[in-house]
Amino acid sequence: MDYQRVFTQAIDRLHAEGRYRVFIDILRNKGMFPNARCFAGHNGPKPVTVWCSNDYLAMGQHPKVIAAMEEALHDVGAGSGGTRNIGGNTHYHVDLEAELADLHGKEGALLFTSGYVSNEATLSTLAKVLPGCIIFSDELNHASMIAGIRNSGCEKRVWRHNDLAHLEELLAAEDPEAPKLIAFESVYSMDGDVAPLHAICDLADKYNALTYLDEVHAVGMYGPRGGGISDRDAAADRITVIEGTLGKAFGVMGGYIAADQVIIDVIRSYAPGFIFTTSLSPVLVAGTLASVRHLKSSSVEREGQQAAAATLKRMFAEAGLPVMDTVTHIVPLMVGDPVKAKKVSDILLAEYGVYVQPINFPTVPRGTERLRFTPGPAHSEEMMRELTDALVEIWGRMEMKLAA
Amino acid sequence: MDYQRVFTQAIDRLHAEGRYRVFIDILRNKGMFPNARCFAGHNGPKPVTVWCSNDYLAMGQHPKVIAAMEEALHDVGAGSGGTRNIGGNTHYHVDLEAELADLHGKEGALLFTSGYVSNEATLSTLAKVLPGCIIFSDELNHASMIAGIRNSGCEKRVWRHNDLAHLEELLAAEDPEAPKLIAFESVYSMDGDVAPLHAICDLADKYNALTYLDEVHAVGMYGPRGGGISDRDAAADRITVIEGTLGKAFGVMGGYIAADQVIIDVIRSYAPGFIFTTSLSPVLVAGTLASVRHLKSSSVEREGQQAAAATLKRMFAEAGLPVMDTVTHIVPLMVGDPVKAKKVSDILLAEYGVYVQPINFPTVPRGTERLRFTPGPAHSEEMMRELTDALVEIWGRMEMKLAA
Repeated sequence: MDYQRVFTQAIDRLHAEGRYRVFIDILRNKGMFPNARCFAGHNGPKPVTVWCSNDYLAMGQHPKVIAAMEEALHDVGAGSGGTRNIGGNTHYHVDLEAELADLHGKEGALLFTSGYVSNEATLSTLAKVLPGCIIFSDELNHASMIAGIRNSGCEKRVWRHNDLAHLEELLAAEDPEAPKLIAFESVYSMDGDVAPLHAICDLADKYNALTYLDEVHAVGMYGPRGGGISDRDAAADRITVIEGTLGKAFGVMGGYIAADQVIIDVIRSYAPGFIFTTSLSPVLVAGTLASVRHLKSSSVEREGQQAAAATLKRMFAEAGLPVMDTVTHIVPLMVGDPVKAKKVSDILLAEYGVYVQPINFPTVPRGTERLRFTPGPAHSEEMMRELTDALVEIWGRMEMKLAA
Repeated sequence: MDYQRVFTQAIDRLHAEGRYRVFIDILRNKGMFPNARCFAGHNGPKPVTVWCSNDYLAMGQHPKVIAAMEEALHDVGAGSGGTRNIGGNTHYHVDLEAELADLHGKEGALLFTSGYVSNEATLSTLAKVLPGCIIFSDELNHASMIAGIRNSGCEKRVWRHNDLAHLEELLAAEDPEAPKLIAFESVYSMDGDVAPLHAICDLADKYNALTYLDEVHAVGMYGPRGGGISDRDAAADRITVIEGTLGKAFGVMGGYIAADQVIIDVIRSYAPGFIFTTSLSPVLVAGTLASVRHLKSSSVEREGQQAAAATLKRMFAEAGLPVMDTVTHIVPLMVGDPVKAKKVSDILLAEYGVYVQPINFPTVPRGTERLRFTPGPAHSEEMMRELTDALVEIWGRMEMKLAA
């Protein structure tokens, strides 16, 4: 057995397919986001504009968030020092869970070290607690949901993306007495489309299924209090488990679920990914608490983001760039080839100081490689104009087609 | 299907077995660790002494760590804003990975959001990349290693804890050409014993197996530079993958692996638990960088911890308390019953202001429930004397047996 050869071949395959990932080495400039410094491949830090951050509302530099983190750092120190059960349950954790439960109108909430872990741990544990459970999973669900479903070991039915007729067909085909769980997202982050929450809940009611909704690309950004699409559509009380992240619009790091107290208690008590891990640093939890509280009462950031997204989509469309049609804050530009997508990204960074990462397989299906822009309240119209002009120049240089 | 009933029954089972977990709600006092404030069940915060933290060396309050985190917070902000591939790769991450690779004398290192995720993601991915791989797993391996092995879907052979003859018997029984991986820990955190690294590596050489070593309860604490037991025993170059945590002796949060560059590149490129998650907050990474660098050159903390552990073990033994025999910094006191272990813990907190969590199933086997003390350089002899006296009083009150 030649281990070295197997490992080298695994890497060679990625190079051959043009999807070997090179991480861009940056530091953001607090207070000047989306401005940042880029390190790798340059002589010293070079200024760049970040167009692909999931810190959608720039809350990662909000004065309230920074102040709360600094206070916690000096009050209690760096880390929690243990699992939630053994020494790592701080008063910040208790307060943030109450705040998140309130955000979604649920009895309880539970923090995880990441959104990935919250999906994996909750889905795998829920299905294990319900013997014979069948999970109905939207085909575009995130890798972390797929991991949780697979690791549950239960039966899975994949429904075509946002296709209600197909979902109903699959639900109707199963034993009415079998436990069922419908797992889906609200905002799909790579295409920027939105699930029909009420219609899915109608099917869940009809077939006595639980519902699991991933709102990571929506919390903080949609609804009058930032509770996500389920807040905007007044559907939260119809969803069994709402899952969210602290690392995108809330600007910090971590994940969570909100649900009835008994479900929170089951996951808290049975999920290895929750039990056997050091809890979130109290510094992060304190920062998130400030962020969630701020976005519950402030809509300026949400409105700024929607306005920026609308402007950028309009500019791209007017310039003939292949912007994908979305109803959200996400602005994807279709390239359809991994090598070309990377080349456009490389030129933008090297020549224009624009940082946008190419998105390739397995994050999106092969043949749909793209650039994905996430304009926010801190991106100015001037930045958008410069970006559009740069893209038009590169599109011409690479002899790619622009719309008339 | 009555979902509510199933969930309620799952919780009722825990109550009936005396292992329903109640999280103690505390805030540590930076600069005064192990002093902390306890919230739940009291009128306002009450001072407690923490005896069960995994912030083993009190680095979570070290001035260098706090200063580095404060600087990063003000320089770049709260969160990373993305995955390592999409916007979340900061210069701090690059620097810390280089520092950790150097700590273990390896070509490369890779950061994860937690030690749990590093074990799960690395073991499941390694075994998938090696078709037909068989994993040989110590029976006391941590839940996160078990999760990674199970999620790999590969064949597993469990060897009796630290039993070299049994490990060799299992290795010899397999096809010599099959890929093999021996997965084990250095310090087992609940019993405080240590694996014979060189002897295991001898078997790995003989049977052409890779080795995967979890050093989470050893990094920072053993070896001249804090590289763990593999540093102390000069065995690091014989181990294929060394896994560690940033959330215990280093005092912050997160996990990592160190290995040859090609293995780092494989995990970086193929592990969903690494790829599809927001990277560690740069604030945490900056703090850890300061902590790792400090502990590479300072042995004061390590010596203080070993001295404290020796003193506490001696006091417990002299008082006739059932202290388990360990060769490390971990001091477990065997109770052998979940209800009694919880009761001792409750009395200590309510009457003596001592916080130590009872350890019950599934963290340890049923019938071996215990209290687990982690004395460190900040625990004074006076604190140890008070703790020992309290335990002797409670042991008497509960009519539990003391040694003559």
